[in-house]
Amino acid sequence: MGHPYAPAELQLPGYVPLQLSQGQILAPYLGASLLLVLVIWLVSGKCRGLSKTDRLLMCWWEFTGLTHIIIEGTFVFAPGFFRKENPNFFNELWKEYSKGDSRYVARDTATLTVEAITAVLEGPASLLAVHILQIAVCLGQLYGCLVYFITAYLDGFNFWVSPFYFWAYFIGANSFWVWIPTLIAMRSWKKICAAFRAEEAKKTK
Amino acid sequence: MGHPYAPAELQLPGYVPLQLSQGQILAPYLGASLLLVLVIWLVSGKCRGLSKTDRLLMCWWEFTGLTHIIIEGTFVFAPGFFRKENPNFFNELWKEYSKGDSRYVARDTATLTVEAITAVLEGPASLLAVHILQIAVCLGQLYGCLVYFITAYLDGFNFWVSPFYFWAYFIGANSFWVWIPTLIAMRSWKKICAAFRAEEAKKTK
Repeated sequence: MGHPYAPAELQLPGYVPLQLSQGQILAPYLGASLLLVLVIWLVSGKCRGLSKTDRLLMCWWEFTGLTHIIIEGTFVFAPGFFRKENPNFFNELWKEYSKGDSRYVARDTATLTVEAITAVLEGPASLLAVHILQIAVCLGQLYGCLVYFITAYLDGFNFWVSPFYFWAYFIGANSFWVWIPTLIAMRSWKKICAAFRAEEAKKTK
Repeated sequence: MGHPYAPAELQLPGYVPLQLSQGQILAPYLGASLLLVLVIWLVSGKCRGLSKTDRLLMCWWEFTGLTHIIIEGTFVFAPGFFRKENPNFFNELWKEYSKGDSRYVARDTATLTVEAITAVLEGPASLLAVHILQIAVCLGQLYGCLVYFITAYLDGFNFWVSPFYFWAYFIGANSFWVWIPTLIAMRSWKKICAAFRAEEAKKTK
């Protein structure tokens, strides 16, 4: 029984083909995420004293935290997801994403390690994120992305079905976890520096 | 031509046996490190206003920064170090360390990735370390250790010649980069929290 992934010589005994279409997988994920963000945006609007940036950050931290725990957690704790006769939504989602990076179905250890750290540590920490924790989680996300991209490069850089999946999944989907944490880490850095300057100014008075 | 590493089936064509003894490798590294720490300790003692903790931290950041750049850098940028007919000190050091973790001679991609990030990013950042950079580098070191230990576990946990090398090199040597960054990160966290509280107190006055 063949599989759609690259490289073609990858062995996946017992692979059960995808039953859901790309739309049936992406629409619920993106729809649920959008709904979550909308609810947090509207509810946080009722709280006085929160700036628009604060509210946007709350939306991001809830979204990324739940993605880490639910989406990445279901990959980490489902070793045989591609062999399941009655796959659930998340099993199907990871079979679809593997078109952009077959190291997921192949259960590459570096990829699994980064996902495990992300699901177990970064996920819960995202939901709690305040000043210092924000910069800590952002740096963790950036370190994880570095390991993810560098190991892919060193291991041959041939894990995608076609350029579409390379750009849409491997580069496109992951890029959000590069530029958003970069922006938030820079903002946190400035806030922490300002706090130190304020403390310093107080001492020298 | 055989090699001394585990697992025995590991293929290392062109392996050149170790010419230096364990003592000839460890003594220069530990001696040079001790000398460096001693010099920084004595010189920093001449600066007024530095607490003993500040001076200890300076010693640590210089030591860990130079270790990252020089020791780990020579591994990252010497792909064929175990095949060199006239190996330099660092080639020999990595052949010795590989007795505790053969993923170094095997050039495992996850290990190489963590070492590359450590040598190129964490090393220079260690030398510059001030408040926020300290917590950033510590978190990076801890993330790197997590990836290092978890990938070893997932990949079979059989990369050492004997229990001695497991405990002395794999666990012992690396443990310094677990407990010292943990202590420094906790200290930085408290300092940052204190700075935020001071800033807050100033605002509400």
